[in-house]
Amino acid sequence: MKRLLSALIALLCCWIGTSAPAVAADRVAELRDAALNGDTVAWDVLEGLTTEVGPRLAATPAEARARAFAVEKLKALGFKNVHIETYDMPLWERGVETAEVISPFPQKLVLAALGNSSATPPGGITAPVVAFDGIAAFMAAPDEAVRGKIVFITHHMAQQQDGGSYGELGVIRFAGPSMASKKGAAAIVIKSIGTDNHRVPHTGVTGWPSGVAPIPAAALSTVDADQLSRILARGKPVTLHLTIGAHMAGTAQSGNVVAEVPGRDPKAGIILIGGHLDSWDLGTGAIDDGAGVAITTAAAKKLLDGPAPLRTIRVVWFGAEEPGGFGGEAYAKAHAADRHVLVAESDFGADRVWRFAVRAQDTKNPLIEKLGQVLSPLGITASHGDAHGGTDVGPTAALGVPVVDLGQDGTHYFDLHHTADDTLDKIDPKQLRQNVAAWTAMLAVMANDPGDLGVLPKGHGE
Amino acid sequence: MKRLLSALIALLCCWIGTSAPAVAADRVAELRDAALNGDTVAWDVLEGLTTEVGPRLAATPAEARARAFAVEKLKALGFKNVHIETYDMPLWERGVETAEVISPFPQKLVLAALGNSSATPPGGITAPVVAFDGIAAFMAAPDEAVRGKIVFITHHMAQQQDGGSYGELGVIRFAGPSMASKKGAAAIVIKSIGTDNHRVPHTGVTGWPSGVAPIPAAALSTVDADQLSRILARGKPVTLHLTIGAHMAGTAQSGNVVAEVPGRDPKAGIILIGGHLDSWDLGTGAIDDGAGVAITTAAAKKLLDGPAPLRTIRVVWFGAEEPGGFGGEAYAKAHAADRHVLVAESDFGADRVWRFAVRAQDTKNPLIEKLGQVLSPLGITASHGDAHGGTDVGPTAALGVPVVDLGQDGTHYFDLHHTADDTLDKIDPKQLRQNVAAWTAMLAVMANDPGDLGVLPKGHGE
Repeated sequence: MKRLLSALIALLCCWIGTSAPAVAADRVAELRDAALNGDTVAWDVLEGLTTEVGPRLAATPAEARARAFAVEKLKALGFKNVHIETYDMPLWERGVETAEVISPFPQKLVLAALGNSSATPPGGITAPVVAFDGIAAFMAAPDEAVRGKIVFITHHMAQQQDGGSYGELGVIRFAGPSMASKKGAAAIVIKSIGTDNHRVPHTGVTGWPSGVAPIPAAALSTVDADQLSRILARGKPVTLHLTIGAHMAGTAQSGNVVAEVPGRDPKAGIILIGGHLDSWDLGTGAIDDGAGVAITTAAAKKLLDGPAPLRTIRVVWFGAEEPGGFGGEAYAKAHAADRHVLVAESDFGADRVWRFAVRAQDTKNPLIEKLGQVLSPLGITASHGDAHGGTDVGPTAALGVPVVDLGQDGTHYFDLHHTADDTLDKIDPKQLRQNVAAWTAMLAVMANDPGDLGVLPKGHGE
Repeated sequence: MKRLLSALIALLCCWIGTSAPAVAADRVAELRDAALNGDTVAWDVLEGLTTEVGPRLAATPAEARARAFAVEKLKALGFKNVHIETYDMPLWERGVETAEVISPFPQKLVLAALGNSSATPPGGITAPVVAFDGIAAFMAAPDEAVRGKIVFITHHMAQQQDGGSYGELGVIRFAGPSMASKKGAAAIVIKSIGTDNHRVPHTGVTGWPSGVAPIPAAALSTVDADQLSRILARGKPVTLHLTIGAHMAGTAQSGNVVAEVPGRDPKAGIILIGGHLDSWDLGTGAIDDGAGVAITTAAAKKLLDGPAPLRTIRVVWFGAEEPGGFGGEAYAKAHAADRHVLVAESDFGADRVWRFAVRAQDTKNPLIEKLGQVLSPLGITASHGDAHGGTDVGPTAALGVPVVDLGQDGTHYFDLHHTADDTLDKIDPKQLRQNVAAWTAMLAVMANDPGDLGVLPKGHGE
């Protein structure tokens, strides 16, 4: 009760103390609520991108078509300085992918190769399965238990609002394959890093540290992984046949699409926002990350349509996030000399924003309180955690730029993440508009307030 | 209120009037509630069949393994006269199946061939799409609008507790392909007859009346069908590339597995119950129809474990239901001389029984009231409709045998029906036990009551 009272008093003081920008606050509320109740830009962008381009794997012709779509759309919306910034990167392509239990109970299993997986020989491989529950059990296994076999790693991922389980269990996908290679495995199949129960495997990138030979690496759907566990539980030796055609295919071009809402004062710096335009190849990338580019574009459009903001808002549709953040790296390198005052990214679906976090030079910066005030009517409260940005804006943030996170509800995100099921029908238009409203409010404050969030040490948050 | 009062009075009269079988009713309640609270047989059968056999397409080696599993399981449970009755039938096999929008927006679509579909040439076919919303619009189209094209028929199926929308919209799958062939189409793709939004197409049988040439026929997932509709809505010509490898593969053997709980009085007749052991090849056939054989077997087991019932209970795991009820036809032919007094089938998933229906010689038969009394504590009420049996017991019912339906909640049935997602994890063990309890109660009444449901005209309900 005492804490509540203190908080109320603090709020009241703040209210009285900020009587000067009260008109501005009204203007922010008006923009925010117009977005909440009537935005059509985000849906239009998202429906267009997922329908007219569909899947858009990094560095493929489909991703190039997504850039062309972005340029056309951003120009039609009236954004300024719309252009593509290209870079080269290694191209990975999916091929055939089949799995079959040969014995003791013959049946097909559904799986998808992980990004950067290598191929089996064309006829596939047949080998006994050695199973582990979790990464720790696998790490503890002696090499001779694994050598020449197909490693299977399962786990128990549950839905969490902040998506935290992905952090802990994602290591199975990131690091399991390279560890399996080092231990001499013939191949590795993991239980999809996901929380659904459909026959749609979750792909995603894996990595091969220098000197580690790539091996065939794939994710079984959660349903198929649990089936394999039940088969293994019978105690009989289990033999799998795997055919994976995935392979690296040389160097190819990717690119970022950049657009701006020009600010009144070029010296007031740039606010960088965006998401990524590439997607995995299995779905049409609605939640990952068509929503992110749609939300940030729609919010910037709200400011584009009014009086010019103090600061320039730069919206970037980043390329090649999925295979490892090539677009974000290329952007940071190309724009290291620009004066960014803030970065923010939307890359966690389209469910409602429920919390926000700020990484500023001074944690008592009054802008944080102002942000809280304009976000509160949307049901958004301050997070106790740090702001992280994301893969796309991370390299720019690391140059010393403050970060705002508008944290989305991730309860259902990993039901769909990186699967064929990441499609437009999974988007709730009402929650999408709430996202646009939150971003609009954030931009209206941060692009117009004479104060900023300061400068951070280089490499912060890395 | 007056109706309620009359109903209460009727119930009370019935209660008083049936004081003689009160002890028997207690025994029925005891068996029923033991099943409700403690049955493990149904889960054991279902988990075993879906794990150790998995998918079991009719007339394939997988279906033969399912028969072997059934014999072993039924013998282990103590059933009598366990044996296989074989028959020959045409074998259909799935092959490769791919779909791709060539223009205007290149992208892959997910589909599955329908049972009895023919193949495209190995390299596939490329043709313009002509789209229809519903079967009536398609029927009205002139042949020249369709000739040489790929027909696409969409629809708007919603969940219904009684699954009624399948009756109305299923005709798109049953009859759409043959109509497309007659109109000269190159191939047909339909929106899956289903109510989910996942990338798992719903297969199922289609038919070619005599003289109609089979053409490639497949179902897009509901998500892919809606994507195709959005693409078409842009108004540009749409070209699809289809590759279908499905084909007929000669004659092969299928079979029914028969088991019995012998009755005390061979002259009192046989109660035929069961489900079908075959499944489509995409899923592991948990709801369709592993659940049906598991539920009916578990209920019969409850009577097997007590004093012998008056009548023989015959449990049949029918073969080859999916491609057209070959098992049910073969059984009726082989057992036409047997005195069946009742048939009942479980083939609508594993969600709770919510209503029952009886087809008897006399609609006032007191057994119907008795059934209602023992089912009522499970939340089951009388249906206003007729009892239909199902594909497996239908041919036997048509010989003049009464039918009991224990109707399951079908709200989610067509989310999963005939898809890769029809797997064990979709089964709720509690609702599965409620099914076993309902079947146990029904059998305990019908196998022991001196009265029966009479004899019906041959061909009833056809």
